[in-house]
Amino acid sequence: MAEETLIHADEVAKHNTRDSCWVILYGQVWDVTDFLPEHPGGANIILKLAGKDATEEYDPVHPPGTLEENLAPSKRLGPIDPKSLPEPVKPAQNIGPEPDESRPAPLSSLLNLDEIEAAATKKISRKGWAYYYSAADDYASKHLNNTVYRSILLRPRVFIDCTRCDQSTTFLGNKLELPIYVSPAAMARLAHPDGEWGIAQACKSFGTMQIISNNASMTPEQIVKDAGPDQIFGWQLYVQTERKKSEDYLARINKLDAIKFICLTLDAPVPGKREEDERSKYINEDHDSVIKDAGGSKLEGGGGIGQSLFFGTDPSLTWKETLPWLKKHTNKPIILKGLQTHEDAYIAAQHAPQIKGIILSNHGGRALDTAPPSVHTLLEIRKYCPEVFSKIDVVIDGGIKRGTDVVKALCLGAKAVGIGRGALFGLGAGGIEGVERVLEILRDETATCMRLLGVERVDQLGMQHVNTRAAERDIYDGPGNLGQKAGEGEGSYGNYGLWLKSKM
Amino acid sequence: MAEETLIHADEVAKHNTRDSCWVILYGQVWDVTDFLPEHPGGANIILKLAGKDATEEYDPVHPPGTLEENLAPSKRLGPIDPKSLPEPVKPAQNIGPEPDESRPAPLSSLLNLDEIEAAATKKISRKGWAYYYSAADDYASKHLNNTVYRSILLRPRVFIDCTRCDQSTTFLGNKLELPIYVSPAAMARLAHPDGEWGIAQACKSFGTMQIISNNASMTPEQIVKDAGPDQIFGWQLYVQTERKKSEDYLARINKLDAIKFICLTLDAPVPGKREEDERSKYINEDHDSVIKDAGGSKLEGGGGIGQSLFFGTDPSLTWKETLPWLKKHTNKPIILKGLQTHEDAYIAAQHAPQIKGIILSNHGGRALDTAPPSVHTLLEIRKYCPEVFSKIDVVIDGGIKRGTDVVKALCLGAKAVGIGRGALFGLGAGGIEGVERVLEILRDETATCMRLLGVERVDQLGMQHVNTRAAERDIYDGPGNLGQKAGEGEGSYGNYGLWLKSKM
Amino acid sequence: MAEETLIHADEVAKHNTRDSCWVILYGQVWDVTDFLPEHPGGANIILKLAGKDATEEYDPVHPPGTLEENLAPSKRLGPIDPKSLPEPVKPAQNIGPEPDESRPAPLSSLLNLDEIEAAATKKISRKGWAYYYSAADDYASKHLNNTVYRSILLRPRVFIDCTRCDQSTTFLGNKLELPIYVSPAAMARLAHPDGEWGIAQACKSFGTMQIISNNASMTPEQIVKDAGPDQIFGWQLYVQTERKKSEDYLARINKLDAIKFICLTLDAPVPGKREEDERSKYINEDHDSVIKDAGGSKLEGGGGIGQSLFFGTDPSLTWKETLPWLKKHTNKPIILKGLQTHEDAYIAAQHAPQIKGIILSNHGGRALDTAPPSVHTLLEIRKYCPEVFSKIDVVIDGGIKRGTDVVKALCLGAKAVGIGRGALFGLGAGGIEGVERVLEILRDETATCMRLLGVERVDQLGMQHVNTRAAERDIYDGPGNLGQKAGEGEGSYGNYGLWLKSKM
Amino acid sequence: MAEETLIHADEVAKHNTRDSCWVILYGQVWDVTDFLPEHPGGANIILKLAGKDATEEYDPVHPPGTLEENLAPSKRLGPIDPKSLPEPVKPAQNIGPEPDESRPAPLSSLLNLDEIEAAATKKISRKGWAYYYSAADDYASKHLNNTVYRSILLRPRVFIDCTRCDQSTTFLGNKLELPIYVSPAAMARLAHPDGEWGIAQACKSFGTMQIISNNASMTPEQIVKDAGPDQIFGWQLYVQTERKKSEDYLARINKLDAIKFICLTLDAPVPGKREEDERSKYINEDHDSVIKDAGGSKLEGGGGIGQSLFFGTDPSLTWKETLPWLKKHTNKPIILKGLQTHEDAYIAAQHAPQIKGIILSNHGGRALDTAPPSVHTLLEIRKYCPEVFSKIDVVIDGGIKRGTDVVKALCLGAKAVGIGRGALFGLGAGGIEGVERVLEILRDETATCMRLLGVERVDQLGMQHVNTRAAERDIYDGPGNLGQKAGEGEGSYGNYGLWLKSKM
Repeated sequence: MAEETLIHADEVAKHNTRDSCWVILYGQVWDVTDFLPEHPGGANIILKLAGKDATEEYDPVHPPGTLEENLAPSKRLGPIDPKSLPEPVKPAQNIGPEPDESRPAPLSSLLNLDEIEAAATKKISRKGWAYYYSAADDYASKHLNNTVYRSILLRPRVFIDCTRCDQSTTFLGNKLELPIYVSPAAMARLAHPDGEWGIAQACKSFGTMQIISNNASMTPEQIVKDAGPDQIFGWQLYVQTERKKSEDYLARINKLDAIKFICLTLDAPVPGKREEDERSKYINEDHDSVIKDAGGSKLEGGGGIGQSLFFGTDPSLTWKETLPWLKKHTNKPIILKGLQTHEDAYIAAQHAPQIKGIILSNHGGRALDTAPPSVHTLLEIRKYCPEVFSKIDVVIDGGIKRGTDVVKALCLGAKAVGIGRGALFGLGAGGIEGVERVLEILRDETATCMRLLGVERVDQLGMQHVNTRAAERDIYDGPGNLGQKAGEGEGSYGNYGLWLKSKM
Repeated sequence: MAEETLIHADEVAKHNTRDSCWVILYGQVWDVTDFLPEHPGGANIILKLAGKDATEEYDPVHPPGTLEENLAPSKRLGPIDPKSLPEPVKPAQNIGPEPDESRPAPLSSLLNLDEIEAAATKKISRKGWAYYYSAADDYASKHLNNTVYRSILLRPRVFIDCTRCDQSTTFLGNKLELPIYVSPAAMARLAHPDGEWGIAQACKSFGTMQIISNNASMTPEQIVKDAGPDQIFGWQLYVQTERKKSEDYLARINKLDAIKFICLTLDAPVPGKREEDERSKYINEDHDSVIKDAGGSKLEGGGGIGQSLFFGTDPSLTWKETLPWLKKHTNKPIILKGLQTHEDAYIAAQHAPQIKGIILSNHGGRALDTAPPSVHTLLEIRKYCPEVFSKIDVVIDGGIKRGTDVVKALCLGAKAVGIGRGALFGLGAGGIEGVERVLEILRDETATCMRLLGVERVDQLGMQHVNTRAAERDIYDGPGNLGQKAGEGEGSYGNYGLWLKSKM
Repeated sequence: MAEETLIHADEVAKHNTRDSCWVILYGQVWDVTDFLPEHPGGANIILKLAGKDATEEYDPVHPPGTLEENLAPSKRLGPIDPKSLPEPVKPAQNIGPEPDESRPAPLSSLLNLDEIEAAATKKISRKGWAYYYSAADDYASKHLNNTVYRSILLRPRVFIDCTRCDQSTTFLGNKLELPIYVSPAAMARLAHPDGEWGIAQACKSFGTMQIISNNASMTPEQIVKDAGPDQIFGWQLYVQTERKKSEDYLARINKLDAIKFICLTLDAPVPGKREEDERSKYINEDHDSVIKDAGGSKLEGGGGIGQSLFFGTDPSLTWKETLPWLKKHTNKPIILKGLQTHEDAYIAAQHAPQIKGIILSNHGGRALDTAPPSVHTLLEIRKYCPEVFSKIDVVIDGGIKRGTDVVKALCLGAKAVGIGRGALFGLGAGGIEGVERVLEILRDETATCMRLLGVERVDQLGMQHVNTRAAERDIYDGPGNLGQKAGEGEGSYGNYGLWLKSKM
Repeated sequence: MAEETLIHADEVAKHNTRDSCWVILYGQVWDVTDFLPEHPGGANIILKLAGKDATEEYDPVHPPGTLEENLAPSKRLGPIDPKSLPEPVKPAQNIGPEPDESRPAPLSSLLNLDEIEAAATKKISRKGWAYYYSAADDYASKHLNNTVYRSILLRPRVFIDCTRCDQSTTFLGNKLELPIYVSPAAMARLAHPDGEWGIAQACKSFGTMQIISNNASMTPEQIVKDAGPDQIFGWQLYVQTERKKSEDYLARINKLDAIKFICLTLDAPVPGKREEDERSKYINEDHDSVIKDAGGSKLEGGGGIGQSLFFGTDPSLTWKETLPWLKKHTNKPIILKGLQTHEDAYIAAQHAPQIKGIILSNHGGRALDTAPPSVHTLLEIRKYCPEVFSKIDVVIDGGIKRGTDVVKALCLGAKAVGIGRGALFGLGAGGIEGVERVLEILRDETATCMRLLGVERVDQLGMQHVNTRAAERDIYDGPGNLGQKAGEGEGSYGNYGLWLKSKM
């Protein structure tokens, strides 16, 4: 065998693109251009080493014979000239996350919602952060919203074809490509100038729904103006004491076809106590002097953004009076947001078809601290009045951080789950693209989870896929279990019947 | 359209009061004086920006059109002269609490009882702090007093008119404006010269009750001297071995009309072990030399303020002998403090009407460590002898930090809750005004909680508003569940009857 | 009223002893010599201020009128000369434990067993510390030994005369003044030269029992040589493979009258894995060179003090063969140590009166990690075979840190509790006096606990004084609960009968 | 008695080997050469002090008389010359692990699997570490795999002869000397050049089994080439979409006699999300420039080693189609890996004898986060379909860190347990010897545990040796417990029958 000509490293270095990709392996130069699309590890992992000696990366992860099995002998171009290679530089070993934090990480390097939140926290104003992050009192409900999902175990089934995965679901008859929508979340422009319109753009890309906050920092008209033809919006209503204002607003909403339903919010008739939000007003200002100069009364304790937004909200809403009024001022379907007990879910279902759906929510832990997570409410409904699921559409929000959380909620009977802070922090981390990244992460995690459970469609998910024993132990067990007298039972509603009636 | 005259920033700056309030928005000067009282976010948030460019603050939280909707065109005074504006200074972003800690925070900026305690800890002496903060042994009961509330979940009901909120309750027939009173807590002047008299002043402002400690650092006469006409006091009695002393004291108390009842304390017949308190005597003194100079016996281990106060207290009290003696020396109603089992609550109720009420209390975790929190005792009573609630007034103390804690205790059957350390730390943080701030915080939190539960009056709160499963799992289950022989049952009291009798 | 002569501070300063004690209060000099024994807070608290201005200390803790009530007018000696007083120096405020750590703290300032351990840890060698502190594997059992007590709640009864408190108990008919004894704990001289003899001296002072370790660092004869006339000892036997050695030792023990029983240890037939102990041999030595110089084989992993002590121990002991052999070689009563299941407790009770008592123990968590704490075994016995308590004396050890722990074990049926590490760390902290301080702390804490429970004698403690629900949830529930076939039941022993028989 | 000649320390120092070993004790020189093999603490502890004054080490751990009992008077060579001794140097006292970390610790000083992992983490590349360490999402399943063992308590029986301990077990009729085997773990050469062949060498030394990963970094032929005559291997199959590839590979495996079975992996039909692994690609590279130079598409999020390995894996496997295909292409027994529910274990057992065994596994927590630990699946099988254990061999992997974990799994019904990361980190810590150290640690810990339970053979371990109440509380309780309609029951399989059938 004739001696082969040595190839110089500079020559190899030129072939570092998809169009011509050479690598050095065990002292030989190989042309892997045609192999790029077939590489089990993807093309990029090779492209990163294109034009270089890849032996150190290649060797420990490929058994001998791999090269020969995958490349024709003709692809071996010849031996490298060893003198032409640069001295190897050992990379420093370090365990843990990326040490260089001077450059902002690309959105694609943010791997989960916690990392999105961390990135946004660095970018947005303290006031905006405090408003988004804050929750009532001691954050017990906000924390529980999340940890209750961790306490539920999944039950993967094996030997099932999981090639296909269809995440589509419906809400009020509208099709959503994802079982993940954006909850009404106020003041999006505190995160990014794209604001609620930006969230709408991201939702369009993923074929999902957005419920516009009554306190949005943009007008509904602005938010929906670039909507896709099938894009779905809801509009959140906080009824004002001055009813005329709400009626005028409803008239305006009635004209917007993209808005498919009205979402009446019930979980915050008065503002919760959000200390981080209240505290932000004390930061970065010389309060004493300002107020004295203004000649004003002394500043009361409290009063962050959260409380300002409640000004004018009517705390006197009731089943009997508010629903008929609302029905009179809109022809769109009505849903209720903020139900936190099976009793209220049961009453809402009794009002079908006047009410088409409900959102189980504790307002992201922002209203009443130690209120139950909506997973509890789902489990309560399932235990005490499962007929609710067949009468109205039930969705939930609060605490969603992972695709596995989404899937667990679906297993328990929700038709979709909403994200609030997730969308706002996504917006803060990167505007439209940040929200898209959030939806992309959750979509991919949800798909992975459904596949590993052996499930192809959302409607196949059920109680057999989850082990909820830890959560079940803690759900409400009725007022009668400690000796209190209870009303007489009726149907599956048991002994809460009388008490319920007296409240309606 | 004619060109408008530019307005100089110095001119705008003059209009920075309630009487004349101008702000710059999007390059235009607006007169918002008349709008101040209508602003949903309150007048102050505008006054802080009066005379300045408010665009950066205004823009991200208002949708377009808001200005036009709310202000007449005549309120637009003209464009600002852009050259007259100062260079913008970006405030540094920082997450977390107020960085400048050199000035004491105003009381209104202290948002919860933990912040009150932190502020007081900085101000009061180490000895005082040690006495207030300390609890028995390893603080297990003190800790549990608080965490047991966190384990109880609330059940908010929606679509209920929550415009009104009436927190008033009664105790022994006396009306309290708040279901929150001040427990007997000794040595208030260690916190502030206002002492127990100061606490009384704060209670007057809020229309609530104070129980005066037997070991107060002021005389009962001093404490009640500025009481309001309807102000309610109780007086705590530790019976002395030298009974004459107690009888003389009772005679003195009998003359004070403001004192409505005698509170016989039973949970600390001997002092608990409070190490932080004991330890404080070793601080800041050169113990060896002092003691030697004094020619005295060696210092025994133990002996903080807590133990000193017990000197002379009689540990031999009994149902049979002490109650008749007490009855003979007072004509005021008698309540018992420090019951920690349903058995003792049951026995107390058997002594009605001689006994009018009980305070479930483990002495703030200061007597016996790992004694149950009074929430356990409430649940025990509810389970084993609920008739107690109808025979005597039951109130509780220990661990209250939040309005939600107050509401949970009321749901479980308490007529009111007492705060001890909360009042003392309030006093330490700011004298009378500090105690008022504590009561204000708890009142406001309690109101928020009642409203969000959909409840208007204290007597509407019930077991249907709380999920106590986690706590119920841990309450006492009877001595018979592990095979021990139990006495025969009687009524709802079950198989504890015989054992109870043998103890009475 | 004539002007009074001013008294110079130097004159006051001379009166700073029990024999003549003056203090300055509110500008007046008082002679409080006669009042010293009557002071509710004790004489020392005054003696520390003798000869000085005590106003700052006195004022905030005494209501007005206290002076006049307690001291005759003649005790007021006159006004102090204000110019003669030194400038007041404000002590720096600091929260937390004693800042000056340069001097070792006096034993009386060590308030609990954790502080004793911390003090000893500073004084003893690393090797000794590692041997005492270490436990098997991951310390799970050592940790659980302690935390299981924290999970048990006490149930204090009130309005019971608790003047008297008698802690005496019996073991094998011997009277102990305390229900707390010293477990067999090896190698006491690693802590202090007083060694096991020192422990014996401390036990004598408190009238309690010591079980001498088979691996004591002193001979039994040395240990018992200064015993009191009624002092009780046991002797722990690890049976040697070379039986003759054990027989000779037993013969030696038979001659010592102070030793009242033989304690056959069963919980460590082979050594547990105690990594901290094994690791200590790697510290402070240049192992490679040493071993090479020694020309020896390579050091095996493992091998701290713990493993050395096992050399020669016989792992083949059985109920059938070992008991008769032992009976032949001693005329003293026999007890068994290290039972960890109700099954073995039941079998032991079947061997009464050959066996007189048992010690429930997991060897301080030093043998098998994740073995149950002896509280579990007590609860198992109570549930499955409570007759054991009436046939043999049951005591327990492991995890005792507080008097409340002692009382809880007694409530569950133990006749006494043993401390091992507590005694050794006491010895390390201060020799005999250190062990005495440990016993003093536990005795005082136990008395406080009994009093606050309303109990006068050890035999009155019972299941009604404890709430063990959290612990009960976790005790063994039988092998049959997951579908495994179980033997037929017999008596209260249920379905473990057959399996038990097959093992005997 | 004549005065004895003093012996110089230099003379003593020469006798520091096994052949001649002198030590100084209490001022006397002793010849302990003959005593070395008899020393209860082992020879090494003496050899370390050979030629030196051993008094300080000897004294506190030996009672007086020990010397005289064990050594003949003739072994006393005479008094040491005190002037010849060096000045004593007190070693500094320090608590905690070895302070000098500059030299790598010898393998024998690594006492448990955590220390092995820590040592390996320092040695291997970040990429390798990230691949081994990583698990899905939030590490919940990886964490639970381990902690579930901690929640199970052991029940040691006493007074049982535990001289002998036989750890052998069988799998598919093959004898294993240990109940511990090596799971299929990919890419071993990332840890050490010895790679999977090195693991095989270590398994040979301990007589146990290795299952070769489909993604091994060496060929199966290389791995088995130095196998012992009775050495057992399995081969893991990931079926490729391009079936021909899998068929060719199976043909190759069929020729290797050392491979006794095919292990079809089912728990990862699609890759889990392993963020630490994905993140490692962002480290130590200038990603932007590299990718741009390569002219390629933008890097997608995700894509560590884990995802690369999945390229080409077929996600469409089913009971009906895949098993017959596999049967056609191999004549070796087939087992299934990755079952996580009792339902799938039940179905697998229905396929016996086509299927001979199953591995309960959640893929080391690397596939679906919050999937149950395999201990849960074992408990489910035991509760709902215990007949599975008699039809097929059940082994498990995941979370094994201690011998007690091994024993617990055996008690619950597993025939053996697999370790994955343990073997890889052992390899990283020291190649073949590192893997041997891992197996040695687990073998020794397992033996200690079996002995302390009073058990001689693996088949004697049963449910009576474990208390699993905490774990049982959390296992799956069926889909019907919250009101969902369930199919009709059949046999011990209860109401899961119909649902099961519909899935098959």
